[in-house]
Amino acid sequence: AEKNREIRLVSRPQGVPRAEDFELAESPLPEPGEGEILVRNAFMSVDPYMRGRMNDVKSYVPPFQIGEALTGGAVGEVVASRAEGIAEGDWVSHMHGWREWAVVEARGAQKIDAAAARPEAYLGVLGITGLTAYIGLFDIGQLTDGETVFVSGAAGAVGSVVGQIAKAKGCTVIGSAGSAEKVAWLRELGFDHAFDYKTADLRGELAEAAPRGIELYFDNVGGDHLQAALGALRPHGRVVACGMISRYNDERPVPGPTNLALIVGKRLRLQGFIVSDHLDRHPAFLAEMSGWLRDGTVVGRETVIDGIESAPGAFIGLLRGENLGKMLVRIGPAPRS
Amino acid sequence: AEKNREIRLVSRPQGVPRAEDFELAESPLPEPGEGEILVRNAFMSVDPYMRGRMNDVKSYVPPFQIGEALTGGAVGEVVASRAEGIAEGDWVSHMHGWREWAVVEARGAQKIDAAAARPEAYLGVLGITGLTAYIGLFDIGQLTDGETVFVSGAAGAVGSVVGQIAKAKGCTVIGSAGSAEKVAWLRELGFDHAFDYKTADLRGELAEAAPRGIELYFDNVGGDHLQAALGALRPHGRVVACGMISRYNDERPVPGPTNLALIVGKRLRLQGFIVSDHLDRHPAFLAEMSGWLRDGTVVGRETVIDGIESAPGAFIGLLRGENLGKMLVRIGPAPRS
Repeated sequence: AEKNREIRLVSRPQGVPRAEDFELAESPLPEPGEGEILVRNAFMSVDPYMRGRMNDVKSYVPPFQIGEALTGGAVGEVVASRAEGIAEGDWVSHMHGWREWAVVEARGAQKIDAAAARPEAYLGVLGITGLTAYIGLFDIGQLTDGETVFVSGAAGAVGSVVGQIAKAKGCTVIGSAGSAEKVAWLRELGFDHAFDYKTADLRGELAEAAPRGIELYFDNVGGDHLQAALGALRPHGRVVACGMISRYNDERPVPGPTNLALIVGKRLRLQGFIVSDHLDRHPAFLAEMSGWLRDGTVVGRETVIDGIESAPGAFIGLLRGENLGKMLVRIGPAPRS
Repeated sequence: AEKNREIRLVSRPQGVPRAEDFELAESPLPEPGEGEILVRNAFMSVDPYMRGRMNDVKSYVPPFQIGEALTGGAVGEVVASRAEGIAEGDWVSHMHGWREWAVVEARGAQKIDAAAARPEAYLGVLGITGLTAYIGLFDIGQLTDGETVFVSGAAGAVGSVVGQIAKAKGCTVIGSAGSAEKVAWLRELGFDHAFDYKTADLRGELAEAAPRGIELYFDNVGGDHLQAALGALRPHGRVVACGMISRYNDERPVPGPTNLALIVGKRLRLQGFIVSDHLDRHPAFLAEMSGWLRDGTVVGRETVIDGIESAPGAFIGLLRGENLGKMLVRIGPAPRS
């Protein structure tokens, strides 16, 4: 009988996760119960937020448990169904990644149209990643056409979509990323100004790119970027606090920006959000984003690593910034065409 | 002929302001031109925001100029008028404090009802100070009845009004202040929990006072208080960034809170404001606050220092926290009754 393979957390990472914090394990092929489906996963997502779940800290999602398989976004084909409304051969998106085969409750699975777009796009630009960019810009950031927008982690999954949507809205878009290759890609995507934060002076780049200041900062990284953005924001500017990846591996407290008093003087608004609070906006998002993909306004890009055994490495690479666009792991067969 | 006396800035303070940064100077009694009034100031206000204007830094208000009289809120009696609608004997509130006599453009003066309330109240609970508390709680903080509210600088001009309004709205109110005397006063005012931050453990006090966390933090001080509040805020909590007095005398950058990543995980909103953006709300505020004063819901309290020559000392004392409630300087005669 076929075996299932999954990635388990074997120790809580201290600082930067290491390969030894994970293990590849075999388990029996699971069987779906009543109201459940069996999915052959094709792609799984690795996301920065997962780093937080590896710590034993209560947050908006419970921590991962030692010795158990990790979870996260995945897409795959339904190979057996005991649930109404989902049939063998359907493609679904769900939260039981980090394993080759998954049993999923029907209500935890969303059918995707694998003919309309590559299934992996539903983990990226058409999925939670794209929705995060959309909610952050519009619902949290209340983007207005033509504003000057700065996005950090701009070559990442969320950042690259943020920049493209903002360009579609007539904004001037500034992006920071961590390599010359990424910066070149941002220029291809139409960013007005892109720079490598590892070699550039953040303040200087912002001053050059936006001499009159920025209206919105979409923060994926925190730290020095947040400090520079607070300095560059115009009065009544907004900070969309989407992620603070520069802080996720901290082993001890790292002091924050020295210029928070600017929040008062410039009447700034900083607001954090978690995309799962906004899933009711998914239909509106999907309609708009599908249009942008069709007409080329937004281009989805993935960095794909092969094999379930490579998932820990893909995750570690993500935290190191080794991805262009969405970081995915291919763990099963593509759709039959 | 009578002389005018005024306080001038003679050097930009380095860190904590010293008496030598100011001088008392005489000038000729000014005469009102067309459309102007001459006011005999009775009280002037000293406010923390003035510290920022003493630096040569562009902010939401221009810096004070060396060698010139300072400015700020004041109330006094009109002794000569060349403006329509304002008569000799009227009492007005205006922005030409730090001097005994002031010539004021009519449009820069608001008539006050010196019979309805002590004139100095129009610099405190009925003035910009009270409006700041009101705008911060309602317009920025979107206070809901019954929430748990933490206010720092709670025995100060704004903080003491914030706490009393929140109590009137059925909130649980926690306040921090800098002496045992202040803490005792907060308890008199009905605060549910008050503590001396100089001797207490901020985190511990908040955990004890609000084991389920706080919904709103009204920040007058920044620094450690902001860090502790971020830790204590419940999901979707708000920070009203009204002032960061703990930072105003900094000579070099001081790092901010180490826990800003909580903004994301808890979906917090931090928002700064400047009360002068909200002067259109003054009539609504005045109507409501007058009612609260009449029925004893809110009590206005001032710490009054005598004499224009004492104004620099009053300002320096304010930054040291030597005031209970609003810090004022009496510089002229009270209303004839």
